[in-house]
Amino acid sequence: MPASPLDQLCVNTIRTLSIDAVQKANSGHPGMPMGTADMAYVLWTKYLKHNPENPSWFDRDRFILSAGHGSMLIYSLLHLTGYDLSLDDIKDFRQWGSKTPGHPEFGHTAGVETTTGPLGQGFATGVGMAMAEAYLANHLNRDGHNVIDHYTYGIVSDGDLMEGISHESASLAGHLKLGKIIYLYDSNNISIDGSTDLAFTEDVQKRFEAYGWHVTEIDGHNHDEISEAIEAAQKAQNQPSLIICKTHIGFGSPNKQDSASSHGAPLGEDEIKLTKEAYGWDYNDAFHIPEEALSQFRNEVEKGKQFNKSWIDSVEAFANVHPELAKDLDTFEKGQLPDTLSDVLPVFESDGSTIATRKASGAVLNSIADVLPNLIGGSADLAGSNNTTLSAKDWYDHAGKTGQNVHYGVREHAMAAAMNGMALHGGVIPYGGTFFVFTDYMRPAIRLAALMGVQSIHVLTHDSIGLGEDGPTHQPIEHLASLRAMPNCVVIRPADANETAYAWKHALERQDGPTLLVLTRQNLPIYERNEDNSASELDCGAYILSDSVKETPDSILLATGSEVEIIMEAKEILKEKNIDARVVSMPSWEIFESQESDYHEKILPSNVKSRVAIEAGSTFGWSRWVGDEGVVIGIDHFGASAPYQTIYKKFGLTSEAVVEAVLKQLS
Amino acid sequence: MPASPLDQLCVNTIRTLSIDAVQKANSGHPGMPMGTADMAYVLWTKYLKHNPENPSWFDRDRFILSAGHGSMLIYSLLHLTGYDLSLDDIKDFRQWGSKTPGHPEFGHTAGVETTTGPLGQGFATGVGMAMAEAYLANHLNRDGHNVIDHYTYGIVSDGDLMEGISHESASLAGHLKLGKIIYLYDSNNISIDGSTDLAFTEDVQKRFEAYGWHVTEIDGHNHDEISEAIEAAQKAQNQPSLIICKTHIGFGSPNKQDSASSHGAPLGEDEIKLTKEAYGWDYNDAFHIPEEALSQFRNEVEKGKQFNKSWIDSVEAFANVHPELAKDLDTFEKGQLPDTLSDVLPVFESDGSTIATRKASGAVLNSIADVLPNLIGGSADLAGSNNTTLSAKDWYDHAGKTGQNVHYGVREHAMAAAMNGMALHGGVIPYGGTFFVFTDYMRPAIRLAALMGVQSIHVLTHDSIGLGEDGPTHQPIEHLASLRAMPNCVVIRPADANETAYAWKHALERQDGPTLLVLTRQNLPIYERNEDNSASELDCGAYILSDSVKETPDSILLATGSEVEIIMEAKEILKEKNIDARVVSMPSWEIFESQESDYHEKILPSNVKSRVAIEAGSTFGWSRWVGDEGVVIGIDHFGASAPYQTIYKKFGLTSEAVVEAVLKQLS
Repeated sequence: MPASPLDQLCVNTIRTLSIDAVQKANSGHPGMPMGTADMAYVLWTKYLKHNPENPSWFDRDRFILSAGHGSMLIYSLLHLTGYDLSLDDIKDFRQWGSKTPGHPEFGHTAGVETTTGPLGQGFATGVGMAMAEAYLANHLNRDGHNVIDHYTYGIVSDGDLMEGISHESASLAGHLKLGKIIYLYDSNNISIDGSTDLAFTEDVQKRFEAYGWHVTEIDGHNHDEISEAIEAAQKAQNQPSLIICKTHIGFGSPNKQDSASSHGAPLGEDEIKLTKEAYGWDYNDAFHIPEEALSQFRNEVEKGKQFNKSWIDSVEAFANVHPELAKDLDTFEKGQLPDTLSDVLPVFESDGSTIATRKASGAVLNSIADVLPNLIGGSADLAGSNNTTLSAKDWYDHAGKTGQNVHYGVREHAMAAAMNGMALHGGVIPYGGTFFVFTDYMRPAIRLAALMGVQSIHVLTHDSIGLGEDGPTHQPIEHLASLRAMPNCVVIRPADANETAYAWKHALERQDGPTLLVLTRQNLPIYERNEDNSASELDCGAYILSDSVKETPDSILLATGSEVEIIMEAKEILKEKNIDARVVSMPSWEIFESQESDYHEKILPSNVKSRVAIEAGSTFGWSRWVGDEGVVIGIDHFGASAPYQTIYKKFGLTSEAVVEAVLKQLS
Repeated sequence: MPASPLDQLCVNTIRTLSIDAVQKANSGHPGMPMGTADMAYVLWTKYLKHNPENPSWFDRDRFILSAGHGSMLIYSLLHLTGYDLSLDDIKDFRQWGSKTPGHPEFGHTAGVETTTGPLGQGFATGVGMAMAEAYLANHLNRDGHNVIDHYTYGIVSDGDLMEGISHESASLAGHLKLGKIIYLYDSNNISIDGSTDLAFTEDVQKRFEAYGWHVTEIDGHNHDEISEAIEAAQKAQNQPSLIICKTHIGFGSPNKQDSASSHGAPLGEDEIKLTKEAYGWDYNDAFHIPEEALSQFRNEVEKGKQFNKSWIDSVEAFANVHPELAKDLDTFEKGQLPDTLSDVLPVFESDGSTIATRKASGAVLNSIADVLPNLIGGSADLAGSNNTTLSAKDWYDHAGKTGQNVHYGVREHAMAAAMNGMALHGGVIPYGGTFFVFTDYMRPAIRLAALMGVQSIHVLTHDSIGLGEDGPTHQPIEHLASLRAMPNCVVIRPADANETAYAWKHALERQDGPTLLVLTRQNLPIYERNEDNSASELDCGAYILSDSVKETPDSILLATGSEVEIIMEAKEILKEKNIDARVVSMPSWEIFESQESDYHEKILPSNVKSRVAIEAGSTFGWSRWVGDEGVVIGIDHFGASAPYQTIYKKFGLTSEAVVEAVLKQLS
């Protein structure tokens, strides 16, 4: 059955708004919204459970526009269905300060569930959202009380499916049987460079079936087929669904439909005229919204209120029968940490024993897990090495999805994106582990966490040449610098077990961006602590671990992580030479930077020019802290395969080298 | 038919060498070599066309151990078949300075074709090798003269196939019908965390068939099946082949076979004893190599000589009939650049017109392509934006594979790894383009190029907020810093069209690592050049574009790329205020760093403390060049979506801000 005239008008309203906004901005992507308006319209007005007046309603369906370049599609939908996005916002598409940036941005525009644009990320983020939904549903729902019950819908593109992350995430989602994922694949056979035949000829249906997905193929412009496919997908409860929607990019444009020319540039006034004629669009003014179309879309407002209200009612009923679980729901939704968090933080005694910070991290994690039933994490197939397993907790598997421990497989990128999705979904606190060097595999997702300001906690072990024999492919060199340079990303490299405990605390409390815990494979001493050098000073980013006797030290020694041991030794050697040095442990540059300048001056007095920093990584950026006369000892080349003590020595990362540098400075 | 006793002895020699080396190092991965010894033995002694005495013989088959953690497999094979790797080297496994590091390293150990360890990379690198082979074969071979004709073999693991890059590369290889790829998949159902069932339950056969691969499944311990499968794969000339070899990890170990415990740790003396008993291994001493086994393996030496000799003969015959092509073969193999390279480098006139450096790059590329018939490149579906297309050249497609232009699709990571593979294969010069921000998607492959010291040229356009409307997801901020921090990676951000030309020249001449050309979307002026400020000074990394009148400038202004325009303006404004500034264009930190200290002093005299640097990216690392009293103007937060001129102004990247900073410094 063809779409009704009203439906057709509504779909064309999405199209013309998108066309006009791109034209006015003289920048953007009209072809994708034109091609996907049908599926989006059917989904948003027949199936999507949402509340335009309360975009953060907890049990809403999530909708992801993975093909973020088609942002005018979602902006049109948001405006038309009654979200807080005005027609003026749409007229301001891609302009400074508008709510309608070039790609959809979470936190910037109400109703945008995740920032998209870098291809594949939306696809993968949705997997995390569905993981969170399944966990919370399993944890909270009881017979007759489905307080968590919603879908994760998405529109994905050829580009998304070409990206490697789509493989990792699809394989993971298929393995976990995440049946509430329903992705509509805008299969238009066109990519930026032309026909997808130029580069992309795989059999997508077969590929996704191989992952265990439920796959159907339909005409993406036929509303009945769209409805049937969505309903079939909803019924496939143990399989994520991919609906392959064959569409025409730039639908209706007489000269640009089915052509790459409609992808990334305005249609042009002439072609817009022809296109609107082809739509039977009777309005001359740009940005015209026919009243009957608007009224049809705005039904979503009333429906949304009803959805939301009946959920509140059901939560009340739930609270009457399951008050403890209702409390959990409330705490989870609000992202509240338990008051007891500090109490359960372990204290490691300085008794002469040594412990790797990765092991300390495992101990901390297992302590705090007792009071955090919504902490969900795991490792990209390195659980034993990353010490990420919550030993008293179950596994999150395809059968139950009740556990807090996730086997991500060797899928770092999918893991990081799933963590973003969980954080965006809300209700759970995600963490994930791998070797520090493999942050390279997940940078695009870490960057999105930083850009969106969502909490994700990365457990990154084997943090330097200190991992030894595995050699240069596994030894991070530039990674500390490269991640410190990323805005809103906090890197913490604790010097001992107690700093590790406070690093975890900091990461849990930091809810507006990713925190990277950078941890050693090798054992480290546990430093003596007193009120002057409490490990809780980690919250200042850098602090005096061991001060000079004199008020103004002769020299300041700086280090992070495992190299703090080296400067502690160097201080002792210097003492024998009557040089009175201060030892500064500097677990986090970013946190230190965020302190007031008088704190900077307190830790690094500007009149002390003799400064030596040492770190088992690139020296890049350290000049800022040691100043023009300072010395930085680091590694500006790749690593080597050998027992780690040998590598430290061969690369000159020794207390003797620190002492020598100080002596040279002072002479 | 079961393997003969001699074959069995040979296979067990590989196994016991691997077991003993891991045990002695007390570190490493015995299970994989034990499980794959059968397939490796059959491949290396029956099919692999190689010459142990000339490991770089150009027409050899390439062999990739993608599962690099199983490095003792390849070290065993190299020693046994007569490469320059002694038994003492094997006894020195994973020790400082040995030829047997933890993971196989190209350039370090003769016979290792590529560095592996980060999973998926070997798989993807092989695709590039096969692309190079196909290109050269099509370019050079003539009827009766197959001077290029070899396979790319590999052993790949579960971990490789879980990584997203395996998807991108497999899809690309299937699309391009790279029939000479033959990968043996060590399907042992075990990953580090335990059974692959925990996280990896996809149907690999179906998945690879969906990519267009030829897929078979065999018993990976049955020599006849291995042979048959390899021969069938050789016959599948238009499809890459995946041979799924069902194997037992830790084969033969009574207590550790089929268990994750044999994966990443020594078996232990007791278990070694039991395992050797199970093999019927009659030798008590570790590292024992039975003479009859060695003699069987060493047949490869004589075979290799013959292979190599008959190739030399065939090249001679070829040269007689096709002297020009033979000259090409010679030039390509040696990696020689034509003498005419400098002549064809375009010169852009400073006539008041403006041009984006990405467009200048396209012009340069099209000029130099005339003299470089082995330049092969393309873009990850952004050819038009990256200006990467050689307009006079054909496309490299699945039909012919004769062209120099590659459609990589939206597969940045596969592209970067394929470039590594092409460079490793030799004979071609690879380049590839995408947006600069998407280097995040290909860092692991860029890092491997840097670690291996192989040439790959990255064309990275849309290099800053200067891309404007696409907004923060597409605007690099931390990327310059994060890549400058990577050892042996050279980042060049040219200030105008003429610097772009010399940047290309530098990249072509730099054959021992990746060079990243970071280019603008927006138009830039073309600066006037004379003998004092030739754009060829780019080869020094930083140079004086416009000097002060006085010998010692009042202030030094530093910038890279598009921001050089800002400091040129600032210099003029300062002149009106009687401040005599020097303008330093600094296209490459790495190149500048590699200059002698007197050159540093010439450009940045230490007595000039007033220095202002400006760059449309993170300020991270700049303190090194401006010193304690200097000022850096940059962007330490994410970008925004708007026309770029607005963003520059709103973010304070203006000549006025530079002037103000200078005035403040000097006051």
